Amino acid sequence: MAEQKKMVEEITSMEEDFAQWYTDIVKKADLIEYSSVKGCMVIRPYGYAVWENIQHILDSRFKATGHENVYMPMFIPESLLQKEKDHVEGFAPEVAWVTHGGSEPLAERLCVRPTSETLFCEHYANIIHSYRDLPKLYNQWCSVVRWEKTTRPFLRSREFLWQEGHTAHATAQEAVEETERMLNVYADFCEEVLCMPVVRGKKTESDKFAGAEDTYAIEALMHDGKALQAGTSHYFGDDFARAFNIQYTDKNNTLQYVHQTSWGMTTRLIGAVIMSHGDNNGLVLPPQIAPIQVVILPIAQHKPGVLDKAYELKERLQGLYRVKVDDSDNSPGWKFSEYEMKGVPLRLEIGPKDMEKNQCVLVRRDTREKYFVSLDNLEEEIERLLSELAASIYNKALENREKRTYICRNIDEINKALSENGDGFVKAMWCGDEACEDAVKEQTGVGSRCIPFAQEELSDVCVCCGKKAKHMVYWGKAY
Amino acid sequence: MAEQKKMVEEITSMEEDFAQWYTDIVKKADLIEYSSVKGCMVIRPYGYAVWENIQHILDSRFKATGHENVYMPMFIPESLLQKEKDHVEGFAPEVAWVTHGGSEPLAERLCVRPTSETLFCEHYANIIHSYRDLPKLYNQWCSVVRWEKTTRPFLRSREFLWQEGHTAHATAQEAVEETERMLNVYADFCEEVLCMPVVRGKKTESDKFAGAEDTYAIEALMHDGKALQAGTSHYFGDDFARAFNIQYTDKNNTLQYVHQTSWGMTTRLIGAVIMSHGDNNGLVLPPQIAPIQVVILPIAQHKPGVLDKAYELKERLQGLYRVKVDDSDNSPGWKFSEYEMKGVPLRLEIGPKDMEKNQCVLVRRDTREKYFVSLDNLEEEIERLLSELAASIYNKALENREKRTYICRNIDEINKALSENGDGFVKAMWCGDEACEDAVKEQTGVGSRCIPFAQEELSDVCVCCGKKAKHMVYWGKAY
Repeated sequence: MAEQKKMVEEITSMEEDFAQWYTDIVKKADLIEYSSVKGCMVIRPYGYAVWENIQHILDSRFKATGHENVYMPMFIPESLLQKEKDHVEGFAPEVAWVTHGGSEPLAERLCVRPTSETLFCEHYANIIHSYRDLPKLYNQWCSVVRWEKTTRPFLRSREFLWQEGHTAHATAQEAVEETERMLNVYADFCEEVLCMPVVRGKKTESDKFAGAEDTYAIEALMHDGKALQAGTSHYFGDDFARAFNIQYTDKNNTLQYVHQTSWGMTTRLIGAVIMSHGDNNGLVLPPQIAPIQVVILPIAQHKPGVLDKAYELKERLQGLYRVKVDDSDNSPGWKFSEYEMKGVPLRLEIGPKDMEKNQCVLVRRDTREKYFVSLDNLEEEIERLLSELAASIYNKALENREKRTYICRNIDEINKALSENGDGFVKAMWCGDEACEDAVKEQTGVGSRCIPFAQEELSDVCVCCGKKAKHMVYWGKAY
Repeated sequence: MAEQKKMVEEITSMEEDFAQWYTDIVKKADLIEYSSVKGCMVIRPYGYAVWENIQHILDSRFKATGHENVYMPMFIPESLLQKEKDHVEGFAPEVAWVTHGGSEPLAERLCVRPTSETLFCEHYANIIHSYRDLPKLYNQWCSVVRWEKTTRPFLRSREFLWQEGHTAHATAQEAVEETERMLNVYADFCEEVLCMPVVRGKKTESDKFAGAEDTYAIEALMHDGKALQAGTSHYFGDDFARAFNIQYTDKNNTLQYVHQTSWGMTTRLIGAVIMSHGDNNGLVLPPQIAPIQVVILPIAQHKPGVLDKAYELKERLQGLYRVKVDDSDNSPGWKFSEYEMKGVPLRLEIGPKDMEKNQCVLVRRDTREKYFVSLDNLEEEIERLLSELAASIYNKALENREKRTYICRNIDEINKALSENGDGFVKAMWCGDEACEDAVKEQTGVGSRCIPFAQEELSDVCVCCGKKAKHMVYWGKAY
């Protein structure tokens, strides 16, 4: 087991330095590599395969809710970006500007899309004329650019991959329903597929998307007690429609403005998965997004029949699961570490002794528990262990969140809870005043994460000013 | 049938003006819409669904040949682009330059990738160390930018979607084999999936990709007799490896340079499909890439049971085919035109009389032939008609190519063939001298398309200078 030990030692433990542990994992699990393009990353095959699985499942959920994919240009002319006042104020400071095409300066500079509201609005103004054209339920998968100062793989980078939904509806009510529907699609995806519990809620005024009337968000708590915004869904009312003149003729032949939404999730979900489930041996991947769900390791593979048996099992399982056989000449110990690092949910060991007994060994990545399983009911056992693993990592993440959620009634209680128990969610009442929101952040370090839809009345006064409270808010330090 | 007539009249006929016919189709079949970003287009849901089907099938063929997907940054620092001399000369004049991030000028300007050889090379230099790391068989799906002066939807645009494969191998031979393998994957895809016959060959020296040692290409002939390059596969030898210092230690512990390839296909394939199979009623889509394979049109849909039956048939067919019911209140005539315009391979009509007879009507898009089909063997009949349609449009395209392929022995014969029969492929011998290649183009208007792998000896002298011929070449006017 010398190699295994060596490999494990190469990762910083999360207790020692969580940020370094994270960086070690993204590199050593072969998820990303740095490039000479500052703030951008190379997503390697293993990391990209995780993203493809996320894409595939999300995309089918979008299509099941009636959405269609499109592709918009990656450039936005400056004049187009400027059409909606709040939107341009929010994004202009962080866009990349194209000023030259070939050797010639452009008449008007173009930004590389940081998000595509303006392009969708221009398109909608062209194609929406009558109530019969509504709703428009569009989505696109693409990369976007935001010129961030400090970057971290997956969590914050100058270019990232995402999907952006953009919809137009006849009425405000329909648009609000869409905003909620997509937040729930996101939340269900996080909980069912990524095994990551989330809080569903609304952002405060100061934390809204640039140009939105309301921003809904799902917030997850990472292993270190910091919050991560995993997805957002925005309701725009008719602000963009007025700025871009997107009008339709209703059934009474009257011109009306459409009501719009947008919503997005990004490659930062991969960062969220790492920090929700990973441990000191590496990644732990939820089965549905794992590029390899079962890795078959032949033991004493030079012995007659072992490799054949390994390949026979692969053949048998591969229509049902994503399976890989590693028959390289690395030692079993090295292989154990390697696939633990990569977060493969199940390891299947098969050697001469197992073959004699018509069995194999299955090892769960999260608990490292060993199961001796008859080959007669291998599929059932794999199915059972994968679901148990999924349920178990979800529950572990939920327990971590519950352990690290502190109910506080004043600023002192917040500071006390955080210093005694470490970072986490603070649940506390708020009067709705931005000054108090800022003061909480300044005096405790935690900012408002969201006003959860599931409200509780912890007290009737604001945690900061003591005046009448309007909302219960989740507060936290955020990635 | 008044509406149908009206609709069909809206398209320019291809005999009258092929270019306008093409533009009419891309717009009226809802494939694209223009945007205020000059030279870039909006790919609408129907057009994007065609691309998704192309992607899906190509991607599985790439994976079946051992390739993995990755994602590289969309920006290339100017210094990185300049590392390979020929490559930068080819691409620098047509790239878009990012010079500012937010409000600050960049220390070094970045181009938006026109292709990603340089980024892959930089990455390969980082991750390839030993012969055990080879081969690397990577692919990426993304958009790229080339600052074209004149643009046409799908065929030539400033931004387009594509895939780019980039591979690194231990030996020249393996890299050459890969270059050929991928050209064949492309050719088979075009012929089997897009029903579009292609000529497989090699580009002449003057027509190679910037930085390549050899460029292989597949060339298709469009309905109007112009050629379209549908895909290319490049062999780089070790030129890039030397420029980027991509070395590995071989089994004898000696440092060696890798040998590389790249290969790409783009959204221009959609343009190729339009111009290969379309007619004066609109698009004709090959079944495998059609977003809707069977459109069900209820006839006299207000009559009892008709809509129910239409939905029952959809239910029955939808696991097997991509099916849509159009129960809108548009007239049957309007619907006939609409789905002909959109190139839906089969129209299924079901009305009260059909129901009485336990039958439906199937209409093939390409021939508009009607088939009365018993509902008892509907699936078999659909399967049969779809395969017949696929074979038939392939054969029609092949016939068009054969009819428009002219064997010529001198410049006069070329001019005579083209003026008598219209544009097409010219097959003629060539001495290998670039001066003759240029002279042919200047004196006849047709350029070299490729040196086909399937060589024929039409004569032993060059079509231009009369000296000894080296190759038989396909010449043509190109999109």
